[in-house]
Amino acid sequence: MAHDEPSLALVWDTFTGYQRTAALRAAIELDVFTHISAGAATVEALAAQCQAVPRGMRALLNHLVMDGFLTRDGDRYGLTPTASALLDRNGPAYVGSAVTFVASPMVMQGFTHLTDAVRRGGTAIPDDGALAPEHPMWVEFARAMAPLAGMTALLLGNLLEVEQAPAWKVLDIAAGHGLFGITLARLNPRLQVTAVDWQNVLAVAGEHARAAGVADRFRMLTGSAFDVPFGDGYDLVLLPNFLHHFDAATCERLLAKARAALKPDGRIVIVEFVPDDDRSGPADAVRFGLVMLAGTPGGDAYTFAEYQTMLRHAGFGTPTLHDLVPSPARVVIAPR
Amino acid sequence: MAHDEPSLALVWDTFTGYQRTAALRAAIELDVFTHISAGAATVEALAAQCQAVPRGMRALLNHLVMDGFLTRDGDRYGLTPTASALLDRNGPAYVGSAVTFVASPMVMQGFTHLTDAVRRGGTAIPDDGALAPEHPMWVEFARAMAPLAGMTALLLGNLLEVEQAPAWKVLDIAAGHGLFGITLARLNPRLQVTAVDWQNVLAVAGEHARAAGVADRFRMLTGSAFDVPFGDGYDLVLLPNFLHHFDAATCERLLAKARAALKPDGRIVIVEFVPDDDRSGPADAVRFGLVMLAGTPGGDAYTFAEYQTMLRHAGFGTPTLHDLVPSPARVVIAPR
Repeated sequence: MAHDEPSLALVWDTFTGYQRTAALRAAIELDVFTHISAGAATVEALAAQCQAVPRGMRALLNHLVMDGFLTRDGDRYGLTPTASALLDRNGPAYVGSAVTFVASPMVMQGFTHLTDAVRRGGTAIPDDGALAPEHPMWVEFARAMAPLAGMTALLLGNLLEVEQAPAWKVLDIAAGHGLFGITLARLNPRLQVTAVDWQNVLAVAGEHARAAGVADRFRMLTGSAFDVPFGDGYDLVLLPNFLHHFDAATCERLLAKARAALKPDGRIVIVEFVPDDDRSGPADAVRFGLVMLAGTPGGDAYTFAEYQTMLRHAGFGTPTLHDLVPSPARVVIAPR
Repeated sequence: MAHDEPSLALVWDTFTGYQRTAALRAAIELDVFTHISAGAATVEALAAQCQAVPRGMRALLNHLVMDGFLTRDGDRYGLTPTASALLDRNGPAYVGSAVTFVASPMVMQGFTHLTDAVRRGGTAIPDDGALAPEHPMWVEFARAMAPLAGMTALLLGNLLEVEQAPAWKVLDIAAGHGLFGITLARLNPRLQVTAVDWQNVLAVAGEHARAAGVADRFRMLTGSAFDVPFGDGYDLVLLPNFLHHFDAATCERLLAKARAALKPDGRIVIVEFVPDDDRSGPADAVRFGLVMLAGTPGGDAYTFAEYQTMLRHAGFGTPTLHDLVPSPARVVIAPR
């Protein structure tokens, strides 16, 4: 993004960016969008539905109009197409829950101490931030990010042509919500999925597998992905949104362990924010590097060139890079 | 702002808005823009100048490129026109310090508890938030916001045609940094300014008055604007960015007290974010209503219609509304 003229508005918008995050989080917590979708349209009606007072509701609603989530016609508020499609809890593409992870106190804490993180080159949160064993943040993650991950997983299923596949054995490492393995299993009734994660997190993945009707083909391995034995004979190993937490040497160690679990013609599938090799874009992928700096000791948003090096060091064949439009996620696939 | 198509990008940008605030705040704290302006251009050079490590600096710089504050050509980073004009500490229009108030822990705390504030219709911070006597936040405010206020005050001086004025006596209520009264005094050597604020805050205003060379015409009244006697015979009473902290009844009480301090042909000058009467814009003024909900028990971004009512109740004549383009501030002026 470039501007030819100095823009005080850009500076002010950035200074106050956290206020727009907070306004949208409050609206989601109060279920404002869901109540508007169900017919409440005025400050008074929404205050009653959301158990708030009109004075507070008015200030919130007017802010959301400015932010592009609500329309207003006189005293009546409505949903913009974005809010209608993505923020109504009863809609099929609801992603509002993601704010409870993306703007959770734990993730935000890293940014509270961002200056220190830049000085030292890694998170300024004690105890390695969110990478401590059984950290409860990942239970929140598993619940909050499931809808968004489900959308990405469907796109991944198309990319992998899962519906036409034979009876693949799939290993989903650091499965979290489990939505990647679960969605592939839903697309192909022959698939068997093994999910690895902390026990407290897999409890959530198990709920999701039951809800998706694939629990009988969903096995769970509890423990650290670095320590628990994976077994072997897998056709696919999924590594969705996991490697970015670690330094390259640690990634290579995990990749080598994953490779040992694959069949000779098996493949590893890495889903990540992947910036271009010079880190000049895409914007969300580049920015994600700072999220990892703020929250982890040695993680990063790795480029495809960096994944190529890690995969080679771990013994894999030549990888390929794939977009998952309209998701900002990208996929790196490498043969064993 | 409206969008015809659902935009996951808008949702994601809002979820992560606080990250852009934090990135810019870190860059300002580390003086990244000032060091680039002075010639440092690479990750390594900037890391050395800012006492950071290259790994951290790289992640921050690449984020700032995405956010519109830096340019990048290979390994060399430069300033966009916005950063060059507004974020170089040695530049004449530096406003970077404002982030230490706008995104201060105290102001952000109100937004951390925004859902509660919407429910109850006022700040969820204990002890009335920042309105407690001698709150140290206002010392930070006085230092941080002085540059931005100085720009607005110059525009106000033009509006009031201060340079052509006779020997006005000016009362600056809740002067803070003092920049409104000080700037008017700088524009007209005949002006006498009396500034009212807490003692700890006026110490900063006194520094600013000395730096501007107007200390001999700058008198200080320490204490609460609601309690300290103002004296009388003023040509102008300034109320810059103060009334928004209070409910309408409290505003009317202060306005009546201010009116009693004016000469018969004196005027009151209110500088504020003033949304349109239906609160449909301008965006920053509408949004400011939520800032007051988050941080004060009964404050608001009042409309001109609401100021008209308050001023009438306080005994003033018919007020007029003025823009201060390119500042988002507006001015309400009423004769005694």
